[in-house]
Amino acid sequence: MYYVGVDLGGTNIAAGLVDEGYRLLAKASTPTGLPRAPEEIADTIYQLAARLLQANGVGFPQVESVGVGIPGTVNRAEGVVEYANNFGFRNVPLVRMLKGRFPCPVWAENDAKAAAWGEYLAGAGKGCQSMVAVTLGTGVGGGVILDGRLWDGCNNAAGELGHMVVERGGRPCTCGRRGCLEAYASATALVQRGREEAKKHPDSLLGRMAAMEPGLNGQKIFEAAAKGDEAANGVVGEFFGYLAEGVANIINILQPERLCIGGGLSGAGEQLLFGLRERVWPLVYSQGSQANTHILLAELGNDAGLVGAAGFRELYGKEKGAI
Amino acid sequence: MYYVGVDLGGTNIAAGLVDEGYRLLAKASTPTGLPRAPEEIADTIYQLAARLLQANGVGFPQVESVGVGIPGTVNRAEGVVEYANNFGFRNVPLVRMLKGRFPCPVWAENDAKAAAWGEYLAGAGKGCQSMVAVTLGTGVGGGVILDGRLWDGCNNAAGELGHMVVERGGRPCTCGRRGCLEAYASATALVQRGREEAKKHPDSLLGRMAAMEPGLNGQKIFEAAAKGDEAANGVVGEFFGYLAEGVANIINILQPERLCIGGGLSGAGEQLLFGLRERVWPLVYSQGSQANTHILLAELGNDAGLVGAAGFRELYGKEKGAI
Repeated sequence: MYYVGVDLGGTNIAAGLVDEGYRLLAKASTPTGLPRAPEEIADTIYQLAARLLQANGVGFPQVESVGVGIPGTVNRAEGVVEYANNFGFRNVPLVRMLKGRFPCPVWAENDAKAAAWGEYLAGAGKGCQSMVAVTLGTGVGGGVILDGRLWDGCNNAAGELGHMVVERGGRPCTCGRRGCLEAYASATALVQRGREEAKKHPDSLLGRMAAMEPGLNGQKIFEAAAKGDEAANGVVGEFFGYLAEGVANIINILQPERLCIGGGLSGAGEQLLFGLRERVWPLVYSQGSQANTHILLAELGNDAGLVGAAGFRELYGKEKGAI
Repeated sequence: MYYVGVDLGGTNIAAGLVDEGYRLLAKASTPTGLPRAPEEIADTIYQLAARLLQANGVGFPQVESVGVGIPGTVNRAEGVVEYANNFGFRNVPLVRMLKGRFPCPVWAENDAKAAAWGEYLAGAGKGCQSMVAVTLGTGVGGGVILDGRLWDGCNNAAGELGHMVVERGGRPCTCGRRGCLEAYASATALVQRGREEAKKHPDSLLGRMAAMEPGLNGQKIFEAAAKGDEAANGVVGEFFGYLAEGVANIINILQPERLCIGGGLSGAGEQLLFGLRERVWPLVYSQGSQANTHILLAELGNDAGLVGAAGFRELYGKEKGAI
């Protein structure tokens, strides 16, 4: 049997064909073409999946279920997208719409949760019982898996790890608070701080990198720091400092077996991993415990959302009240 | 049938007789008399429980189980106290020792978790599926109940809500970090800030209260604030500001159905509750959600630990690997 995972983005819709071992066999994508009505988007999802299956010689009878990840608040028990800003969706019964098209069960969840679930099923979380996924991208997102379940709270809104204040009264965050982890440890925040320091130190490696097209990104800032550039090291050190506080907070509260770092910045690889581990350890309350949270890198990259969406059925199978 | 809950404290050992509806029918206590060997403490626990039962006309055959809460790290699956500072316990198989004395099942857990569990079973959490208990006392402690389970993490050390940094580089905390919630929102921190401001403003109501024996406590600081004293209002406002950040962080991460505030400071009642609610709401990420976390006061006061310990069997009954 096969599973189809769909990653419904504001720019593109991607679909992945996944086997029973959660291996991603093939993928396809198409422009989202917003603004569009929900029914049209449901049509496109169906057509994209049909094309993916046909190209890989798989028929619908061999597909056990379809899962869709979408950037917004999803009531997964009812299959309703309560709110998705980019799409202009409010209380859209996406699962019902798709069930009218696909001849198999359909599930939907938030896309960040899909990515966390994918890492849990087939990546950094494989084989463990509890994992927190922290995603460092445009914002700081995440997913909390406890006892093999993706925790969604009383309102499907749990897991907003980026909107944890680590410096009261600090930098303004897009959410309206000040001092959120997202305002310090997202790729956006890192690059902004990099640009500020590059302006102050135009002759530094960081400054010279910033002057070249297309300008700075997180990768380049880490690169400059690894080469010993002082300005870049200052920026990266500050980034690590805040990220370590946030990660240690999560560990002190939840003590998951594993905590994985994903998103664009995780491309910095071992430099990020080792830098973070050595800074988190002194901040962890449970240093005397026999077991402690293992911090590691996400493994599936951009495919995590497709794999996780394909695995939504596993999420629901473990819950009461699944559709 | 009846249940016995034991609260093993550094000064006193308390025992409570609890019925099937988790009503506390009677209690008894005796000095702990530290330092003492684990076997002696096990003897005392047994004798105290026997005395409590006899005084209330209950025989051992009518007792279904005994639960013990202890300030330390407890491996509840194995019934071992891994570490209890006050008692000098390291890897003490307390449950096995007690099973040799009591003719019924015995469970053990950390005392803060026992109190949270008691509130969940019979107090502020009655009837809900997820609750976080935040305890404002000497320190800031807590318990996290998700899906009807007391979450203990990979090492029995989860739930250290007080050791969440809300102001990076802020006030030193007993744990070694700086800026922990505990350093701002514990009774200890509130009283310390009260004393500092009382010194600066000796003619304020706060200053006059501090000059009288036995000096300030949390209750008095709240009282002075309620009477409009500016110095006290400054201290209480600051306390609320930090507590609200910590509570909003917990909500943004976990979105529990309920969040209850217990511990000594919860004696400030509605003044605390309403002050906190109005400050937390603007900080919560899920303001557009149909449901949101309900913040309320703990209901069982100092008895929560006894009731929770008596209800440990319910905790274990829901878990795999129970003894």
